[in-house]
Amino acid sequence: MTLHNVRSETPRLGVAMIGSGLMAKSHTMGYRNVEGMYGSSPYRPHFAVLADAKENLARSGAESLGYGRWTADWREAIAAPEVDVVDIVTPNWLHKEIALAAIAAGKHVYCEKPLAVTAADAREMYEAAEAVGVKTLVGFNYLRNPAIAEARRLVGTGALGNIWTLQGRFVLDACSDADVPFAWRFDRKLAGSGALGDLGAHVVALARALAGPISSVCGLSRTFIRTRPAATGAFGYGSDADLGAPRREVENDDATTFLMEFASGASGHIEASRTATGRPYHLSIELIGSKGSLQFVQQDIHTLRLYLDDDAAEHKGYRQIELGPAHGDYGAFWPFPGVPIGLHELKTIEVHEWLSAIADDRCPDGDFKEGWLVSEVLEAVERSVAQRRWVDVEKSS
Amino acid sequence: MTLHNVRSETPRLGVAMIGSGLMAKSHTMGYRNVEGMYGSSPYRPHFAVLADAKENLARSGAESLGYGRWTADWREAIAAPEVDVVDIVTPNWLHKEIALAAIAAGKHVYCEKPLAVTAADAREMYEAAEAVGVKTLVGFNYLRNPAIAEARRLVGTGALGNIWTLQGRFVLDACSDADVPFAWRFDRKLAGSGALGDLGAHVVALARALAGPISSVCGLSRTFIRTRPAATGAFGYGSDADLGAPRREVENDDATTFLMEFASGASGHIEASRTATGRPYHLSIELIGSKGSLQFVQQDIHTLRLYLDDDAAEHKGYRQIELGPAHGDYGAFWPFPGVPIGLHELKTIEVHEWLSAIADDRCPDGDFKEGWLVSEVLEAVERSVAQRRWVDVEKSS
Amino acid sequence: MTLHNVRSETPRLGVAMIGSGLMAKSHTMGYRNVEGMYGSSPYRPHFAVLADAKENLARSGAESLGYGRWTADWREAIAAPEVDVVDIVTPNWLHKEIALAAIAAGKHVYCEKPLAVTAADAREMYEAAEAVGVKTLVGFNYLRNPAIAEARRLVGTGALGNIWTLQGRFVLDACSDADVPFAWRFDRKLAGSGALGDLGAHVVALARALAGPISSVCGLSRTFIRTRPAATGAFGYGSDADLGAPRREVENDDATTFLMEFASGASGHIEASRTATGRPYHLSIELIGSKGSLQFVQQDIHTLRLYLDDDAAEHKGYRQIELGPAHGDYGAFWPFPGVPIGLHELKTIEVHEWLSAIADDRCPDGDFKEGWLVSEVLEAVERSVAQRRWVDVEKSS
Amino acid sequence: MTLHNVRSETPRLGVAMIGSGLMAKSHTMGYRNVEGMYGSSPYRPHFAVLADAKENLARSGAESLGYGRWTADWREAIAAPEVDVVDIVTPNWLHKEIALAAIAAGKHVYCEKPLAVTAADAREMYEAAEAVGVKTLVGFNYLRNPAIAEARRLVGTGALGNIWTLQGRFVLDACSDADVPFAWRFDRKLAGSGALGDLGAHVVALARALAGPISSVCGLSRTFIRTRPAATGAFGYGSDADLGAPRREVENDDATTFLMEFASGASGHIEASRTATGRPYHLSIELIGSKGSLQFVQQDIHTLRLYLDDDAAEHKGYRQIELGPAHGDYGAFWPFPGVPIGLHELKTIEVHEWLSAIADDRCPDGDFKEGWLVSEVLEAVERSVAQRRWVDVEKSS
Ligand SMILES: NC(=O)C1=CN([C@@H]2O[C@H](COP(=O)(O)OP(=O)(O)OC[C@H]3O[C@@H](n4cnc5c(N)ncnc54)[C@H](O)[C@@H]3O)[C@@H](O)[C@H]2O)C=CC1
Ligand SMILES: NC(=O)C1=CN([C@@H]2O[C@H](COP(=O)(O)OP(=O)(O)OC[C@H]3O[C@@H](n4cnc5c(N)ncnc54)[C@H](O)[C@@H]3O)[C@@H](O)[C@H]2O)C=CC1
Ligand SMILES: NC(=O)C1=CN([C@@H]2O[C@H](COP(=O)(O)OP(=O)(O)OC[C@H]3O[C@@H](n4cnc5c(N)ncnc54)[C@H](O)[C@@H]3O)[C@@H](O)[C@H]2O)C=CC1
Ligand SMILES: NC(=O)C1=CN([C@@H]2O[C@H](COP(=O)(O)OP(=O)(O)OC[C@H]3O[C@@H](n4cnc5c(N)ncnc54)[C@H](O)[C@@H]3O)[C@@H](O)[C@H]2O)C=CC1
Repeated sequence: MTLHNVRSETPRLGVAMIGSGLMAKSHTMGYRNVEGMYGSSPYRPHFAVLADAKENLARSGAESLGYGRWTADWREAIAAPEVDVVDIVTPNWLHKEIALAAIAAGKHVYCEKPLAVTAADAREMYEAAEAVGVKTLVGFNYLRNPAIAEARRLVGTGALGNIWTLQGRFVLDACSDADVPFAWRFDRKLAGSGALGDLGAHVVALARALAGPISSVCGLSRTFIRTRPAATGAFGYGSDADLGAPRREVENDDATTFLMEFASGASGHIEASRTATGRPYHLSIELIGSKGSLQFVQQDIHTLRLYLDDDAAEHKGYRQIELGPAHGDYGAFWPFPGVPIGLHELKTIEVHEWLSAIADDRCPDGDFKEGWLVSEVLEAVERSVAQRRWVDVEKSS
Repeated sequence: MTLHNVRSETPRLGVAMIGSGLMAKSHTMGYRNVEGMYGSSPYRPHFAVLADAKENLARSGAESLGYGRWTADWREAIAAPEVDVVDIVTPNWLHKEIALAAIAAGKHVYCEKPLAVTAADAREMYEAAEAVGVKTLVGFNYLRNPAIAEARRLVGTGALGNIWTLQGRFVLDACSDADVPFAWRFDRKLAGSGALGDLGAHVVALARALAGPISSVCGLSRTFIRTRPAATGAFGYGSDADLGAPRREVENDDATTFLMEFASGASGHIEASRTATGRPYHLSIELIGSKGSLQFVQQDIHTLRLYLDDDAAEHKGYRQIELGPAHGDYGAFWPFPGVPIGLHELKTIEVHEWLSAIADDRCPDGDFKEGWLVSEVLEAVERSVAQRRWVDVEKSS
Repeated sequence: MTLHNVRSETPRLGVAMIGSGLMAKSHTMGYRNVEGMYGSSPYRPHFAVLADAKENLARSGAESLGYGRWTADWREAIAAPEVDVVDIVTPNWLHKEIALAAIAAGKHVYCEKPLAVTAADAREMYEAAEAVGVKTLVGFNYLRNPAIAEARRLVGTGALGNIWTLQGRFVLDACSDADVPFAWRFDRKLAGSGALGDLGAHVVALARALAGPISSVCGLSRTFIRTRPAATGAFGYGSDADLGAPRREVENDDATTFLMEFASGASGHIEASRTATGRPYHLSIELIGSKGSLQFVQQDIHTLRLYLDDDAAEHKGYRQIELGPAHGDYGAFWPFPGVPIGLHELKTIEVHEWLSAIADDRCPDGDFKEGWLVSEVLEAVERSVAQRRWVDVEKSS
Repeated sequence: MTLHNVRSETPRLGVAMIGSGLMAKSHTMGYRNVEGMYGSSPYRPHFAVLADAKENLARSGAESLGYGRWTADWREAIAAPEVDVVDIVTPNWLHKEIALAAIAAGKHVYCEKPLAVTAADAREMYEAAEAVGVKTLVGFNYLRNPAIAEARRLVGTGALGNIWTLQGRFVLDACSDADVPFAWRFDRKLAGSGALGDLGAHVVALARALAGPISSVCGLSRTFIRTRPAATGAFGYGSDADLGAPRREVENDDATTFLMEFASGASGHIEASRTATGRPYHLSIELIGSKGSLQFVQQDIHTLRLYLDDDAAEHKGYRQIELGPAHGDYGAFWPFPGVPIGLHELKTIEVHEWLSAIADDRCPDGDFKEGWLVSEVLEAVERSVAQRRWVDVEKSS
């Protein structure tokens, strides 16, 4: 008989997932798929524990996502000895407490964005991890786009000349309907800012990756829908409203747009909205330089649009680069260009970076320091809105 | 023999064109084509006089554009008795003087945008015309898009619900090259602001038409290319540089972006740039409301994109309305939908509105009052840039 | 007094327009605008006579379009001594008789497409003009696109390598509604084929211009709407139905698609439809070569999409060339790139070619010979449909 | 201690994967992700054995993809008692032999497209499975698009009226370069037809799903690159050429386009090409009906474009439906609309259908019968190319 047993030498890495919602799923898929997609992996994840405050969610999440154990108490998940890394995929207000506990227990921490509800909290988390020496990562998954990898490379080579302006946009219409229930995302204490923190955080991370530190900002915020039906247990996007419920006052921004100046002298603006009626999911970046420009739209994930001013005169024009094995980690997915990469698949790239950084004992791209510096920008925007003038970002790099 | 002579009863209207550049051509085409396109016209233009400061331009312009007489002195053109309307298509700094003279002579005045170099000048022009009772029009030709006509109608019917945000953009790359020569557009005294006045003026007019008066603004301006080769005689877009020439300091903005609040409570931002590398001609508007949204891109002139939230759940989505005879003045051009209308053809619509307003003794849409109020917005943006804070628009409606 | 009279030395050319419908308007605009747009013209048209079978149309058309005289008898228009060129913008079945009469009278003839109802008729028209030595032109206005001019240039330089395939499409939905009345376009004797002749003719002309003679074809035709309400006097596109009217059987194709082989070895297919529900006006061309490819969509008239395989590996991708003064006759309209050119404006380019060819005593691009050879292709498609097999084009170059 | 063990009751299903190339990866990802994505699954796959003819590929594939055992002899994989389903992801010529063996062993069989090299072989496979009563599936993954699910639903409700035409396209440029090596895909015995079978098979399956059986066809094939460098071991897409190698004659089509008639009376055409320079991955479908139309482009996977003729007159136009939880299996991936689904994620949907059909003891959508009927269409196209005329499809439903 020639059926040979497989004996993998890839080391194990125990994972605790704190939360069982949308991002719990996405992180778990990422861990599960790295080795198969890439053909190899620095670690083979061991799906040790999943924790959720609600028992039924913890149990069913652990079962469908393939974790070995479940608990309603995240402290136990962190404490479990087979756990090496802790993934925090809970609502924002819990990020800090869980992260600090995990760091104290010497576990690596992979936390969703925004890193914390305030910039001071984010800084505390970053400094705690620095002190202990564990690795950290924030879920800025849009940084993982092959298009963004290529954009960063192009900026780095100087192909675009001096960067003049950057425009970014992340707008949804998930909350355009006044009857979307009041969930944690509308509560200032639980979520921090609204669209700004939830969506803007991603764009600020992209902006910083492409054009460097942001030094000053001036913003405009609006809460178009001032009250929403109170609803218990409505956590995720897309949950239904109980129309009879009493209405609660929304405590943060539905939409924020801000102007910004970069330390480099570049300028631009960023827009975040959860009430962009008709746009269920639109994230885009436009970068204009003295010699070239770039455009990227998340929904058109297969392409990066590039303009190079030194093209021949008759042939000048934005070109639609079809992303492929030459760009970022695309080649892990497909051997030929042009195939759309799914959003969960970006998490697979993110997890690959995470596992690689742990194995190589280096800081991954998008760690807690980055998470903190993004928070400083977001908080400066909030100050500028309150003061109706430009303000400096507290610490920009 | 049955060859019958045609005897038109359409009354004549004598036109004086002041300037012989790009807009002189566009205005003249507009006058020439109204009757043929629309099948009838309130007036048949008589191309009386063309004036240009440069004799050779005046002579050649008059000849190719079909004017009966030419002069190097615009005062003579205004004075000519067969002249009923005066078109001002000179650089901005001349608009005021010429307009006041024409108004004083009792002629109707059709002036290019921006109406004047300062808001105070624009106001003076508006008030002079009001006092005398002549008709006035500003060349906000983008208002003439069938798409914009339809957008205004949709806003009016309430189909979009409350208007939440408006975003507008008019960006070019005509000046991205540092060797584009220093022409009047870069000179503060001659042009006023840079991209803001030249391009932003159009978008402010569109924003006001769609979402009403703008009450406060906060802007960011940049002059990316600080000096340009001095060049005599380089007036128009696309003129070549004399690279050996000494360089002169640019006196106004290459790019301006500003946040705005509307009197209605809506908010938004507008971006104007003449250095948007890779974008030779991009004007766009996005309007988001509580029940629907609109997108319009000038280059895709055949279509208006409309989202209506009360579409059936499975069929929600932006629809690409192909503009046709049901929208604005499209039907003057083509009997079936979807055909791109040229930019000169928008001037034909503008001239039709102009001639109709004169015939009907009413103010045309986009008159000097509108030109002045647009200038107030632009000037407020300049103040906000200087003061790095939000400022109120002096007079917004 | 320094108001100088203009004295143009541009020679006159007397025009007779036969027909007063949509194309009469478009041709007249073309003649009227050439000199103003281009800055000069070989001839200044004299709008001598307009003829239409219906007196009221002849009178009103002549008046609004600015002709000096009108007649209900096209023979008189041809005979008028001040007439140098005859424009035939009547339904197809009249093209031959009018053209032969005009040629016999020694007038130059500019005739709309399709040149004739049969290939034999088209050939007779071509040969008659050849014999007499007058100039001829067919209204293949899509050839005038700056994008097509550039595409022809690119093919000529070999930038695309060997041309492998060409795909063309001209589809409308003007007739998708079963209650669009039976007009001349549905009558085989008056129109010839349906969508094939009306729309396919344009695409065949483009295909020949870009990839040379077509040697064999195999087609599929469908008449989806078999009867339509009979209507007298419904000539143009977009005319309304009289729903009570008796229904008449449609005599030609609503939609035809055909495969084709070019003499060069290239292959491809062309689709024509007047019942392409949801597509009011869609004309597109895609050309694939061994080293590069091209895409053009008429509605996106400001751009030509170009792929060049020898771009740097990471930057490969279709580029969206914004058409500008470097391409074809674009520069006559705008000094900077990216502005949509209207469809009537393409006629202005066509008339410029027409006047230039007459002045230079050369055959214009798209003359009766081309009109005839296009008709041979169309007729071969009809034969192939009847025989359900590939057939050779009678005479392909 | 409250760390609870998870005890899943989901039954096991043993999988044997035959092949370790691109599709082995995609199938394995599909099996692995069903339960996590959907939240539950009829079976939890047991990754039993992976077989590849090459020992090193078998070993490394099994390891990275997580199979328990590996073998170089696929017969052993089939024979393994823990194996319940056999996935055939080898080159085409092996599909038949492996499938017949697996069927004989009473295993369910999931085979990649095209089902076989000839229609007769495909029929034999189908009939064998029928006789034994095992479940079968062909890898027509594009059927799994939420957009296609919605399109089928819309056709079914009659929203589009009578279907008049269908146009489909699957074109790549993976083989545009003449130095892409001669791999199995260019060998008639190993692959069957070229682009037609490899790419056209997917489009024929889509066409049948949307418009029903195809009754007759007429095609045009071209082999643009007649020889390629011989290369041993170059199996997949994107493999590099050994330029020194002797060149071998390509034995099948680089590009095929065919006209088709459906049993329903609809018509259309399909194009398949592996040499569509500039188009790395383009699959599209357009469906035109008497009352509405649809467009789908695989690269724009987040959207289905829909036109409904009964929209209000001023609002007619293609709408861009953002796919979401209301469409097909989208909701398994994201709770809000508009997110691009990756191509591997389509395989997850396919595997979900596969596991569900096995559990429910029903034929999955896209089984061997469908694979066979698709092959009949492809083979008819080949006959029509040889005979240069229309031919009937042998058995169309
Ligand atoms: N990177 C990205 O693109 C995205 C990031 N996020 C971020 O991920 C985080 C989670 O968001 P979603 O998964 O969308 O939220 P969700 O509402 O779907 O899930 C949150 C989960 O946390 C659980 N939870 C609440 N309190 C808990 C506690 N004390 N202990 C354990 N579990 C608890 C809830 O029961 C729920 O299962 C947020 O910070 C959000 O900003 C969310 C969506 C996308
Ligand atoms: N509505 C629109 O879309 C556009 C509006 N414009 C506006 O139109 C105006 C003219 O712009 P262009 O035609 O592009 O400029 P241009 O530079 O092409 O033409 C200006 C003309 O004015 C003439 N001129 C200068 N001084 C004069 C004087 N004292 N008397 C008579 N003529 C004199 C110049 O010789 C030149 O022929 C500007 O106010 C500009 O902002 C320009 C382009 C587009
Ligand atoms: N190049 C292009 O893109 C287009 C070309 N065409 C072609 O132009 C030609 C005319 O089409 P349309 O202008 O759309 O048609 P139309 O139906 O709008 O106009 C035809 C005109 O011919 C007149 N007419 C009919 N019999 C006549 C006669 N015996 N003597 C004088 N006039 C007569 C009619 O009264 C009518 O005014 C056709 O051959 C058509 O194929 C039409 C539209 C677009
Ligand atoms: N559904 C889809 O979208 C796609 C389907 N396919 C289909 O999937 C099949 C496989 O294609 P790819 O994975 O792209 O090919 P590939 O060339 O990447 O992989 C084929 C694998 O089969 C192995 N193999 C060859 N002979 C074998 C044998 N006797 N026993 C066991 N293994 C053997 C090879 O070593 C190789 O690992 C083909 O039928 C192809 O048409 C391929 C790509 C996409």
